[in-house]
Amino acid sequence: MLMKNNLIKELQKQLSPENVLTEIEERYAYAKDASNSFEKPNLPDVVVFAQDISQIQSIVKIANKYSIPIICRGAGTNVVGACTCVHGGIILNFSKMNKILEINSENMTAKVQPGVVVGDLQKAVDSFGLFYPPDPSNLKVSTIGGSIAQNSGGAKSFKYGTTRDYVLELTVITANGEILKTGSNTIKNSTGYNLTSLFTGSEGTLGIVAEATLKLIPKPECQKVLMAYFDSIETAIKTVNSIIEQKIYPTTIDFMDKNAIQTVEKFYPANLLTDKECALIIEVDGFKNSIEYQKNIIVNILNSNNASEIQFSTNDEEYERIWAARHSSMGACAKLKPNVTTDDVIVPRENLAKLVKGIQDICKKYNLTTCLVGHVGDGSIHPQIPIDYNDKEEYKNYKLAKAEIYDLTASLGGILSGEHGIGVEKQPYIDKVINSTALNYMRQIKKIFDPNNILNPYKIF
Amino acid sequence: MLMKNNLIKELQKQLSPENVLTEIEERYAYAKDASNSFEKPNLPDVVVFAQDISQIQSIVKIANKYSIPIICRGAGTNVVGACTCVHGGIILNFSKMNKILEINSENMTAKVQPGVVVGDLQKAVDSFGLFYPPDPSNLKVSTIGGSIAQNSGGAKSFKYGTTRDYVLELTVITANGEILKTGSNTIKNSTGYNLTSLFTGSEGTLGIVAEATLKLIPKPECQKVLMAYFDSIETAIKTVNSIIEQKIYPTTIDFMDKNAIQTVEKFYPANLLTDKECALIIEVDGFKNSIEYQKNIIVNILNSNNASEIQFSTNDEEYERIWAARHSSMGACAKLKPNVTTDDVIVPRENLAKLVKGIQDICKKYNLTTCLVGHVGDGSIHPQIPIDYNDKEEYKNYKLAKAEIYDLTASLGGILSGEHGIGVEKQPYIDKVINSTALNYMRQIKKIFDPNNILNPYKIF
Repeated sequence: MLMKNNLIKELQKQLSPENVLTEIEERYAYAKDASNSFEKPNLPDVVVFAQDISQIQSIVKIANKYSIPIICRGAGTNVVGACTCVHGGIILNFSKMNKILEINSENMTAKVQPGVVVGDLQKAVDSFGLFYPPDPSNLKVSTIGGSIAQNSGGAKSFKYGTTRDYVLELTVITANGEILKTGSNTIKNSTGYNLTSLFTGSEGTLGIVAEATLKLIPKPECQKVLMAYFDSIETAIKTVNSIIEQKIYPTTIDFMDKNAIQTVEKFYPANLLTDKECALIIEVDGFKNSIEYQKNIIVNILNSNNASEIQFSTNDEEYERIWAARHSSMGACAKLKPNVTTDDVIVPRENLAKLVKGIQDICKKYNLTTCLVGHVGDGSIHPQIPIDYNDKEEYKNYKLAKAEIYDLTASLGGILSGEHGIGVEKQPYIDKVINSTALNYMRQIKKIFDPNNILNPYKIF
Repeated sequence: MLMKNNLIKELQKQLSPENVLTEIEERYAYAKDASNSFEKPNLPDVVVFAQDISQIQSIVKIANKYSIPIICRGAGTNVVGACTCVHGGIILNFSKMNKILEINSENMTAKVQPGVVVGDLQKAVDSFGLFYPPDPSNLKVSTIGGSIAQNSGGAKSFKYGTTRDYVLELTVITANGEILKTGSNTIKNSTGYNLTSLFTGSEGTLGIVAEATLKLIPKPECQKVLMAYFDSIETAIKTVNSIIEQKIYPTTIDFMDKNAIQTVEKFYPANLLTDKECALIIEVDGFKNSIEYQKNIIVNILNSNNASEIQFSTNDEEYERIWAARHSSMGACAKLKPNVTTDDVIVPRENLAKLVKGIQDICKKYNLTTCLVGHVGDGSIHPQIPIDYNDKEEYKNYKLAKAEIYDLTASLGGILSGEHGIGVEKQPYIDKVINSTALNYMRQIKKIFDPNNILNPYKIF
């Protein structure tokens, strides 16, 4: 207790008292993230706000002195517990380091602090005619720091890749307080080992990202979306390939299963066809004069695959309406039970139909409802499972179903996360998809960068 | 000598004698790569051909037993000495592991052995309507294994990125002979540390890539190239930004300076305008109906930037002719002196004009000719310097100029290689662009994967 008092005094001295939250009700606000699947909250010892790089260095030094973990946090939207404590610690909040430091249209780069909200960056670069493609579905609140930690993807990953593809250089504060510069302010780099990609997706376990230079691309002139329904999951997925064979490269090929469609329609009516087995949401972009051309090819393919009710966005309002339906799924699901969980599994696309049907079967077996949405172009599925944590039986069933879904994913050549990360939620399952040789090297890398295990411990492995 | 005899006997036993080259004239063929800038050849002790993964494991075990380095080699096209010995060793030749194991059009992936020639892979996937974008200029001979080792780029990196962006999973034989699987057969992955990107570009110093799964994309319907001349380097480079501001995303914006143009025209006449300061070669791709649109926008921009003689490829022949002129530069340069060197420096594009003019000035100061070509969209320049190694004074000047070019690059926020790697040629200069903290972590990573330093030692750092 005395030790904790001293820790807090030192933090207050370095950061000023208003940047150090110690009251239990303040700390409770940081005891969870959006994963909504902890049985009890994990209370941090203290929450601090850093305002610059030297303050991060001070926090690291103090953490080392008291052997207390540091858990970085942006908006807390993570869904695998990556930004929560396991056994106490310092939550390092980046909401006061939220500046876009530079948008350089000549280099096509943006230099940002970790607390910048992804959607804010997208808007800011848009006015330069530039585009930052990674689009996690919570981009209106989630931060760049979190995206880098988890290597976030989003609907447009099919064409544009994930966060990792856009991180050019990082300023990282290491576990011993050094400033480590990785990468370079150039769009190509074959100079030494790629530490930038190593940090991206490492979930705050290797170092603290204090600044990032991100790659931007020219903004596509135009984007349109269409939605189509199918009576068969296999046919829907097969259709994806027919589209690609015609040299169309959609930005997005998203998916909703029957339950997802029905649940959305129940709570957020949008004239969806509730008797269909599934729907595809296909977005294309490019020059205005190519959109009609792409649309016609896709519509022909959809028709010859017996899709029905093809809705095409001719204006912004229709575009937003179609996407709103897809994005309402989680909120709609949440209305079915007191709690809702989301997951993130991904397989080679050739096995996607098996994954979808397998997840439906597993959930049926355990008497769980599930709404399946996902980025079918990527082979990625987000099972959304509404449950009641107070129902012990249901919670037990959920845990069993989850493990079976991961086994199924592994057996189909997939992995446990395409874009959310592993955090603490999936840490017990990591060896289902990463073999011991690879895990062993990952652990050794962790040891190099964080010998005292103070950076986000108990995560990933 | 006895030890070497035993080493060779063991290798012959594991690989069969025809896969073990021991004669001095055979080994001489592997004493150099394409860098053409060694004063004396670096003879390997032995050259071996592996035919499968278990043979690679045997070679690694033998190398450990005799504490002898292993240097992997594809086509030997590397230009920084990355695939040559420094103090002897085993050259591991991959030309007998050159199979495309699978092209999976549903997953949009290709599974390949390291000896597959890049151009052969491109052709093979083309027949599936798919596209493997990385296009090192020597792709007709250079191999995937080499591309992965050096993280090769090429002309199309501006839009499509480099090799790293297309490597999904690797089978790596570690320094102690384990089989390490990295990554996954999915286009997104947020599951553990990204070892795949760590190995890509590590120049064979961390492990031996035995198999790779590569990402493919839908093949663009059409591609056209245009060439335009400028009286000013600054204007040419400024033009790049005007193009991007109009939401055009060329695959390539390449560059030739006056010397490069004149030298090509002298030896490979192609009706180039030899009185102009420089030329841009701009390639666009996309749907057929968008090409004319893109061309018109670009031509307008070029005209308003005082470009002259805009040549546009209306057919395949013209396309090849324009690219042939750009690609002849190295060969033309080689005709000026007994030897020719090429280099690879890259800066943020806003500093590119300074880099180009600075390199021209440095070469003038040291009385060296230089032909500057490069991927101006990427900020990348390849100075090609014809010299005579037997002219001691000239060689000394070349070395001095080289160091000054690297200092200039570093001072402009650039790095020493965008796509060729560091190898042995640039190893003495790496600390000009990577600080000691980062180098220290890189060295520690090397130690984890290769504690006995048997994998391509003396390279990078």
